[in-house]
Amino acid sequence: MIRIVKIGGNVVDNPELLRSFVKDFAAMPGMKVLVHGGGVMASQMQKSMGMTPVMVEGRRVTDEDALKVVTMVYAGWCNKNITALLQSEGCNAIGLTGADGNAIRAMKRPPVFVESLGKDVDYGYVGDVKAESVNSAFIYSLMERGIVPVFNAINHDGEGNLLNTNADTIASSVACALAGYRYRDCRDVCSRCEECTHCSDDGRLTHETELIYCFEKDGVLYDKDDDSSVIPEIDRERFASLKAEGRVADGMIPKLANSFKAIDSGVGRVIIKHARNLLNDKGTVLR
Amino acid sequence: MIRIVKIGGNVVDNPELLRSFVKDFAAMPGMKVLVHGGGVMASQMQKSMGMTPVMVEGRRVTDEDALKVVTMVYAGWCNKNITALLQSEGCNAIGLTGADGNAIRAMKRPPVFVESLGKDVDYGYVGDVKAESVNSAFIYSLMERGIVPVFNAINHDGEGNLLNTNADTIASSVACALAGYRYRDCRDVCSRCEECTHCSDDGRLTHETELIYCFEKDGVLYDKDDDSSVIPEIDRERFASLKAEGRVADGMIPKLANSFKAIDSGVGRVIIKHARNLLNDKGTVLR
Repeated sequence: MIRIVKIGGNVVDNPELLRSFVKDFAAMPGMKVLVHGGGVMASQMQKSMGMTPVMVEGRRVTDEDALKVVTMVYAGWCNKNITALLQSEGCNAIGLTGADGNAIRAMKRPPVFVESLGKDVDYGYVGDVKAESVNSAFIYSLMERGIVPVFNAINHDGEGNLLNTNADTIASSVACALAGYRYRDCRDVCSRCEECTHCSDDGRLTHETELIYCFEKDGVLYDKDDDSSVIPEIDRERFASLKAEGRVADGMIPKLANSFKAIDSGVGRVIIKHARNLLNDKGTVLR
Repeated sequence: MIRIVKIGGNVVDNPELLRSFVKDFAAMPGMKVLVHGGGVMASQMQKSMGMTPVMVEGRRVTDEDALKVVTMVYAGWCNKNITALLQSEGCNAIGLTGADGNAIRAMKRPPVFVESLGKDVDYGYVGDVKAESVNSAFIYSLMERGIVPVFNAINHDGEGNLLNTNADTIASSVACALAGYRYRDCRDVCSRCEECTHCSDDGRLTHETELIYCFEKDGVLYDKDDDSSVIPEIDRERFASLKAEGRVADGMIPKLANSFKAIDSGVGRVIIKHARNLLNDKGTVLR
């Protein structure tokens, strides 16, 4: 089992919650990957340097100066702090951007038409990531030696440029890539293919993967004003009916849709929960 | 052969020189490690955020705010940029602080008496590094797989704190540690110890290491006002006579003294040269 855990700004920005999350994450058994967002610190830093953060539909327009700031904040301060905290809890973490070990390549996003603005927007040094651009062999080789990769939102294009990407997408791309990673060919291990029930036809031995999104609620809520109305499990059918009822809306729809896409690509299950519940069963499981 | 190359601010701050250095470093054959300083960008960043950089005897007094800035600049912007540039030249670089993979631990420096000020100075989050605190097994395991470690000046204390350290000392500590790293026990390879002339008595197989300091001059100059007066080779005897003649003075004395200490600790040779001469023979060789 490989677990890919994504934490957002609500954890990164809260020293107390971060410390307790780090303790829990360090205690989580098995192979694991952490992906973190950057929180509000990047915008604060931009402002303190006299820049004006520009967001379009929740995504940061990243010109050269903004790229410098997000790289400093995400890959520098946040990433190295989390790594040092994990080390102090006995978790042998390694902080990575996509450039490190060529772990993840991103494609610079061309200008896109934004409906709410009625015009094309050039997001600048913003990149998109897919499962195919994840170097699973490298990431796996670290985990195999007990090293825990900690990714932030900065990746590279292979041409010497850093790009600001979306941490949720990094998490699902890494999860999909690791779900498909053949860590061993079973035909190297035994030759009794005809009797075998353990592997798929192509001799692939892969790990089950679980993608865990930690966010500011306890899970997907049936009643958005009632924190205790967490829906324990959602399958595709239930997702369709929840949408029809208007129970999930706005930002939750793409989050769930992307989660089911990850499941289509081989991720065993996706869990949406609060960071403080990392080690318990609370939260919403998508299958 | 393992080469450990240190570059300072004169390279990091100069985009043109950096790009051409990166090309040369990528082309350098064999196992290698890069260590970079931070240049003047940290001070500029401090000023742009309304802080006043405080330096005592050339070292930055690093309070909590200054630590944030140097971590952002060294471990974020500089380190990830150099890594992405190396990747674009086909060099599989990985940017590291000491926290990453627990590569290097530093000891927080206690307040020290500074003679020029006549009082104790608390440097804050400043750490000191020794060869013993370098995780050579981890660094070697990366290099063995063709991955090139790129260190910056940030390390950790193992208690969750990042510390600002001296990049020259990191370079010599890593060189000494790798010089002493037994990558294989020769007794695992053959059992003809009595006939053997290849290894030392303890069955140790180690790599020869070379430490290359790139700085703003072409080497150690016999006449400090004549750039063409590079001394090609200095041994201990020559060092003593150069000091006696007053040919080396100020900052060059500790640099050379530390280099000879590295040689005492097993580093094969130390070379002092300009970054633009990385791939040629120019420079001063210490043995």
